[in-house]
Amino acid sequence: MAFLIPDTLDNLASPLFFVARSHRVAGTKGRDMTNHAEAIAELKDLLGDRLSQGQSVRETHSHDEAYTTPVLPDAVAFPESTQEVSEIVKICARHKCPIVAYGVGSSLEGHVVPVKGGVSLNMMGMNKVLAIHAEDLDAVVQPGVTRTELNTELRDTGLMFTVDPGADATMGGMAATRASGTNSVRYGTMRENVLALEVVTADGSIIRTGTRAKKSSAGYDLTHLFVGSEGTLGIITELTVRLFGQPESISAATCAFEDIDNAVQSVILAIQIGLPMARIELIDEVQIKALNSYNDSFDLPEKPHLFLEFHGSPAGVAEQVESFKDIAEDLGATDFEWAKKTEDRNRLWAARHNAYYAARSLRPQGSAVLTDCCVPISALADCIRIAKDKIAEAGLISPIVGHVGDGNFHLQILIDPEDEVEFSAAKALASELNHVAIEHEGTVTGEHGVGLGKIAYMEAQNGAAYGVMAMLKRSMDPDNILNPGKVVQIN
Amino acid sequence: MAFLIPDTLDNLASPLFFVARSHRVAGTKGRDMTNHAEAIAELKDLLGDRLSQGQSVRETHSHDEAYTTPVLPDAVAFPESTQEVSEIVKICARHKCPIVAYGVGSSLEGHVVPVKGGVSLNMMGMNKVLAIHAEDLDAVVQPGVTRTELNTELRDTGLMFTVDPGADATMGGMAATRASGTNSVRYGTMRENVLALEVVTADGSIIRTGTRAKKSSAGYDLTHLFVGSEGTLGIITELTVRLFGQPESISAATCAFEDIDNAVQSVILAIQIGLPMARIELIDEVQIKALNSYNDSFDLPEKPHLFLEFHGSPAGVAEQVESFKDIAEDLGATDFEWAKKTEDRNRLWAARHNAYYAARSLRPQGSAVLTDCCVPISALADCIRIAKDKIAEAGLISPIVGHVGDGNFHLQILIDPEDEVEFSAAKALASELNHVAIEHEGTVTGEHGVGLGKIAYMEAQNGAAYGVMAMLKRSMDPDNILNPGKVVQIN
Repeated sequence: MAFLIPDTLDNLASPLFFVARSHRVAGTKGRDMTNHAEAIAELKDLLGDRLSQGQSVRETHSHDEAYTTPVLPDAVAFPESTQEVSEIVKICARHKCPIVAYGVGSSLEGHVVPVKGGVSLNMMGMNKVLAIHAEDLDAVVQPGVTRTELNTELRDTGLMFTVDPGADATMGGMAATRASGTNSVRYGTMRENVLALEVVTADGSIIRTGTRAKKSSAGYDLTHLFVGSEGTLGIITELTVRLFGQPESISAATCAFEDIDNAVQSVILAIQIGLPMARIELIDEVQIKALNSYNDSFDLPEKPHLFLEFHGSPAGVAEQVESFKDIAEDLGATDFEWAKKTEDRNRLWAARHNAYYAARSLRPQGSAVLTDCCVPISALADCIRIAKDKIAEAGLISPIVGHVGDGNFHLQILIDPEDEVEFSAAKALASELNHVAIEHEGTVTGEHGVGLGKIAYMEAQNGAAYGVMAMLKRSMDPDNILNPGKVVQIN
Repeated sequence: MAFLIPDTLDNLASPLFFVARSHRVAGTKGRDMTNHAEAIAELKDLLGDRLSQGQSVRETHSHDEAYTTPVLPDAVAFPESTQEVSEIVKICARHKCPIVAYGVGSSLEGHVVPVKGGVSLNMMGMNKVLAIHAEDLDAVVQPGVTRTELNTELRDTGLMFTVDPGADATMGGMAATRASGTNSVRYGTMRENVLALEVVTADGSIIRTGTRAKKSSAGYDLTHLFVGSEGTLGIITELTVRLFGQPESISAATCAFEDIDNAVQSVILAIQIGLPMARIELIDEVQIKALNSYNDSFDLPEKPHLFLEFHGSPAGVAEQVESFKDIAEDLGATDFEWAKKTEDRNRLWAARHNAYYAARSLRPQGSAVLTDCCVPISALADCIRIAKDKIAEAGLISPIVGHVGDGNFHLQILIDPEDEVEFSAAKALASELNHVAIEHEGTVTGEHGVGLGKIAYMEAQNGAAYGVMAMLKRSMDPDNILNPGKVVQIN
């Protein structure tokens, strides 16, 4: 089912985890393949060895990290330039053959599953950092560069790229899904961090959106239209992204609260006074129990916790730490632990990053249903309380973690996938939470994206605006060849 | 001519200034008015007294602050609710009658001139602050609320709305033009500060874009599509905007440099180390001369200056100030003056805000051609040098100021509007600078918008993407009734 996301509990930098996925790969029965075959013949002429129809290559490109039924593409193309992407799209457009861009396949909602077959476009041959503009704090990269590859290139510049979804995702994929992560509360999501794009549109045209200037009032904001469009409006072939200076000083901390309300209230007050926290993660008591049992060196009280990180000058960080401590202690926070040394900090965030594995240790033989919602922070404690009530009513176990500064929370509902009743209960719970998020003026996905998994909720969330999205899709991709079946259903 | 902007030199909070504008109001000759008349008859039934065809009301709505030929609307409608806007748009859509939304008329590129007649939609009857969510740091407002009205409502909350274009513009207008200002280097432009919108589309549908959650990956980013679309894709009827906590401490300063390169380099280094400057304005030596002669209490050395403001905790502000001073002095900065007291700070920014009047004092009988460009900050000193060379070559006088942290600079070319040769030289210079900005990977307008004034440069700047913008306009407004003739030319 679409919203079963067997990935890490959150989107932090943990190795990806594949749960047992149904390998019932969808066939081509009932699909008119003539147009695909003609397109593929032309693509073969264009790309030679860089067009593959091998079974194992097609299987690799049949799924992402979501628990959706894999679908084989008819072929996989490996372009090496924007010009080549343009030519590929032109061929596919002529034959109305679907095209799905693919990076490392780390998306979480079935985004890259080629549900109508066609061509999977593996972008990993376009993996160069084209320019680093240290004075302008931007970098120009090809879409197949991963976020850690970019940060490796930046190592000697004193600069960093901040968006940190769980996987070592590609920059193209991160832009396409409007990814975010633990640093987004301070440094923004891909929405704020993509300045400009080069895109191949559905007719094979190459366009450039935005500029390297920090701001512009010159026309429609096409950059933001493509960011988050999941490859359904165009194929991203180049990105200009924002960089930040590496902080002079970093300090991390954990503290415990009697209840989630006070943890959230601390964050609200800290944000109101302008504390520029770099990371602020909520870990509920179920997840703390899991962390304690999974990590030998952990023995935290089984209460809701905040894990925090502060960036700045040494004096600035010290001041932030003191200010936060004052706020939190007024709200009953206890058990402050500071991780000023790099190794202590790494140990803390490694534990956080391994939250999924830790959670799974609560039920080693099981699997998990994941869901990601985002609400106004004033509604976060209520929504988590509702989630906990529903978890209890259903007799399920589900740790909750969240990027609390953004109002974004993740459930990992631990299940036995062979137990149909439990499985259905988990699915129902995930579905209900999407509606809870909508009712609280929030969104059914803060960072994972729509793909196949959340498409059923798009109309409920967007109302009449969903019709405008469909209209945009129809006008920009009239033959529905770009990642059909994702974000909006137009036929 | 379209790019003659007789407004303040920059977009700071100065009273608006009307230069002698040609009052040759365009007539209706050659225009098929039948459809307009039918629409207006129906609108009269709907709105009664709140539809005006009086000459003076129509004249008020025939222009903005730009030096464009005014065009009378056929009527002016004064809606009081979203539902009413929807009904008005439905009537106009049925009769293919143009509709131009109008706030306080402070736009700078002819945005609100109803070049094809039709209905001017005065949004000032929708001027309520609907909600302030202090915990979520957002406010929900109607489009006719001005930015100072919102800040007045916020006074007792400890919160502030930060975007500060020159005029006391409406929130709807600011969103429509993607406005920014002196605080944008720290707090962002309207692009970053609009979270969600309610919009009436070209067929009269009411849609809601975005949510009150801080982030979302749920579908196409319609909010950013409408922000900056200048009323050509829909009429904004409600906005949810970001708020920030008022800083605990504020300090302002001025310092002088031998040349603009070193002033810009200081800003680049300060941004690279992460100094969160709240304002950082470049004032060239010509403008300093004007300030000295215009303000009795000013006697600054006639050199390029930076005017700065720092926000934060008292200790944080002190640290920022010291860090900036170290950087700037290494680059030869002199004549530091600190304005820690509120009255000193107000005096400083009042002088900055009055830059236009000061500049005009250099040539009291003249007028001015204004232009606004934005480039990557690494190119800013070069672009200003090119501008200065071109000013000298043309034998013109033009002070330059800029929001240097954003790479955004403004020229005010002082002219005698009766002198055709000088006038043409100024226009040619403004035009050349747009191309200089494009060549330096920048934009022809950082904050004023396209309107009529910059539309001639949209294709040069956007290339093939301009075609995509036109396609979006055609699909979202097939009869071209929403502010026709602005942003993109589609017929």
